[in-house]
Amino acid sequence: MTITETPVNTKRRSQWSTIPSSQTARNTVNPIRAVVEKMQRARIEWEESQKSHSFSVRGKPQAPISLSIGDPTVFGNFKTHPAVNDAVLNQLNSYQANGYAPSYGIPTARAAVARKFHTPDAPLTPDDVILTSACSGALEMAIGSLADPGQNILVPLPGFPLYKTLAQSRGVDIREYRLLPERNWEVDLADFESLIDDNTAAVIINNPSNPCGSVFSRTHLLAILAVCERNHVPIIADEIYADIVFDSSATEGSIENVFYPISSLTQTVPILTVGGLAKQWLVPGWRMGWILIHDRQNLFSQVRKGLFALSTLILGPNTLIQAAIPDIFANVPSSFLQDTITTLSEHARVCQQRLAQIPGLKVVMPQGAMYMMVGLQMDEFRDIDNDVDFASRLNLEESVEVLPGQCFNYPNYFRIVLTPPVDKLEEACHRLERFCHHHHIH
Amino acid sequence: MTITETPVNTKRRSQWSTIPSSQTARNTVNPIRAVVEKMQRARIEWEESQKSHSFSVRGKPQAPISLSIGDPTVFGNFKTHPAVNDAVLNQLNSYQANGYAPSYGIPTARAAVARKFHTPDAPLTPDDVILTSACSGALEMAIGSLADPGQNILVPLPGFPLYKTLAQSRGVDIREYRLLPERNWEVDLADFESLIDDNTAAVIINNPSNPCGSVFSRTHLLAILAVCERNHVPIIADEIYADIVFDSSATEGSIENVFYPISSLTQTVPILTVGGLAKQWLVPGWRMGWILIHDRQNLFSQVRKGLFALSTLILGPNTLIQAAIPDIFANVPSSFLQDTITTLSEHARVCQQRLAQIPGLKVVMPQGAMYMMVGLQMDEFRDIDNDVDFASRLNLEESVEVLPGQCFNYPNYFRIVLTPPVDKLEEACHRLERFCHHHHIH
Repeated sequence: MTITETPVNTKRRSQWSTIPSSQTARNTVNPIRAVVEKMQRARIEWEESQKSHSFSVRGKPQAPISLSIGDPTVFGNFKTHPAVNDAVLNQLNSYQANGYAPSYGIPTARAAVARKFHTPDAPLTPDDVILTSACSGALEMAIGSLADPGQNILVPLPGFPLYKTLAQSRGVDIREYRLLPERNWEVDLADFESLIDDNTAAVIINNPSNPCGSVFSRTHLLAILAVCERNHVPIIADEIYADIVFDSSATEGSIENVFYPISSLTQTVPILTVGGLAKQWLVPGWRMGWILIHDRQNLFSQVRKGLFALSTLILGPNTLIQAAIPDIFANVPSSFLQDTITTLSEHARVCQQRLAQIPGLKVVMPQGAMYMMVGLQMDEFRDIDNDVDFASRLNLEESVEVLPGQCFNYPNYFRIVLTPPVDKLEEACHRLERFCHHHHIH
Repeated sequence: MTITETPVNTKRRSQWSTIPSSQTARNTVNPIRAVVEKMQRARIEWEESQKSHSFSVRGKPQAPISLSIGDPTVFGNFKTHPAVNDAVLNQLNSYQANGYAPSYGIPTARAAVARKFHTPDAPLTPDDVILTSACSGALEMAIGSLADPGQNILVPLPGFPLYKTLAQSRGVDIREYRLLPERNWEVDLADFESLIDDNTAAVIINNPSNPCGSVFSRTHLLAILAVCERNHVPIIADEIYADIVFDSSATEGSIENVFYPISSLTQTVPILTVGGLAKQWLVPGWRMGWILIHDRQNLFSQVRKGLFALSTLILGPNTLIQAAIPDIFANVPSSFLQDTITTLSEHARVCQQRLAQIPGLKVVMPQGAMYMMVGLQMDEFRDIDNDVDFASRLNLEESVEVLPGQCFNYPNYFRIVLTPPVDKLEEACHRLERFCHHHHIH
């Protein structure tokens, strides 16, 4: 047997060597992970330098406070409603929801989702609903059904990094359209329209927004739709934070805070709306999501078939949760969402008031979702290079974790989550204040 | 504004027209669906012809018996163990398993899976385990991490059609290697090896087998491994039916019935083993699967990274079930699996004895999993064209559903599931006998 170093055009490999991973896997990059790893390395280096100097910057260590993870369940103050658990328990005890479901979902659950999100201007039938493995799975299928390698998809900047990860994993290009912090993170419509070309397979509109916490007005949504209509581009509407809109008292009554499903404002633009149980029902780990097909012009006939085909690949989400959906929607009182909103509104108000007074920070008051973006006046800090440096050193010196804007490809900002208990948020604001004072140029 | 019929090389689309679905979606084809739809059309045509003639072939209608769906839960005779429900219930009541898990799985669950499938010859640590959305999701990630478009993967013939669907969805070619019914569905090793070339990214070995119900001997697995070793090709081992091996009394003691994890028989060939809770714990709808990375030569360092990257796309399976895994493995008694095996062994024996006496049929006695393949001596039937025709007319005339071999790209056979209650299986055998007698050439 002959042995060659690099077998090319031989019928078989002649020796073991590292098995290459696929191009798809190599293209699949999660930007948050890269930034977080950079911060972790900084922490290790810092800890080693502290050891060699045998002292600690601020004396005794403080309990860490994480404002970085968009998971409302981690602090124990946001729990799903007991009726949600009861609905799952009933399915568990029935032994009737353990088998395979149709790949696009259990009929009763599809019907319940259709009823829940049906509006007179955006009607839905059970056939317009596909149940998916969480909103991530819904996005994955929506992008996968619409876009080919070499095509592009427009995504918001700043925006949820999974859009980019999902698109690039498929060889689909992304083009980032600017959101304007000075206009409560509205879309820069001229920039948005200039990025659309014949290879634009879809635009992603995320409302309410992660990471911005913005909620688009009816007028602004109509303006976005006009651009899509003029350019004949379909929309993927990420509405996972649907209806999580803060009390207008929290935003001091200056802004009309109402969530409009974008599908309810057009009769022509075809839209795939993605959502799930994660945020409003506070069970992100349950991985229950859906796609709503809004297509009054019958432009999505092929895309619809494509979505159903893609659903056969991993055969849908957990059947216990699917089967529980009708009871969840029927039995959770509307006060449950209102309580969540009241709490988040209060948290947003507290953070806004505290952070607005800290030198070097610039707050954009959020209107919904669970997040707030905070701007950094970098030239006001004497020894901090950028937002990743800010987040790293804040974590090292004050044990407060925030996500630097670079996680969202948006430097000079950081994102905080509004879900921790208010005493933790106040303590975090206190530490941020001390940190900023310490590093401020004065 | 100018309007063109087909906008090419213009910057924007000038009018709405049907939105094309992606090539990926168009490449995603489920062959069972195509065959089942053909059978449904045959049923509609038959019903219409019956109406016009105003009579029914066999008088009063019979209750349908489905031997087509590989779902052990549908008849109510196979239920998961109460300890499985209790494990999930504990997580539900704790409110501690509702948040996001790491994309590759909850640490305690990964550790439990590693312990469960660890063998001295195939050691596993928690880092070698990735939790996935069912075994389908595990296969999707395994193929996705190993194979690029234009490469090929070897799959068994007959075999589980999802392999082909998943590969083709990614533009990966499949090459089908023959299994030999006359040798209890062992791999035709010469055929297998002849299909391997430099573009072969992996071979899929499914043991115990769907649809064949075969269980490979230690000797045969070693022969398969020798081919992979000689050609330096990694294995995707689909062991979703691990340990579901019939009592040897059912196979009349003629065959040694033992399941060997293929990973336990090699120290060199890198293997991704896929499995899940679906079959042994009788909860296919729960979508809980895993990948076990067996890589003693450190050939999968890149593939491992690729798998972790792919896991970030839809962020893993339902956390309630993940978190319940340690209790499920600890608290379900071994008698539960033994009871399942005893029942399935009896069902296999009954079907084998009944079907072997029917003219025109040729049974290959299964050794495990939940299926039996039955050969058709097509030349002994006077008015039946092929296996799809056989299955269609059996369903029309006797209300017994079986899957024709063409679903597995293997004509002149049909597959029955062995999970229905024994009285249903006996009734189905009775109807099959009547059907075959009616259509036999005599």
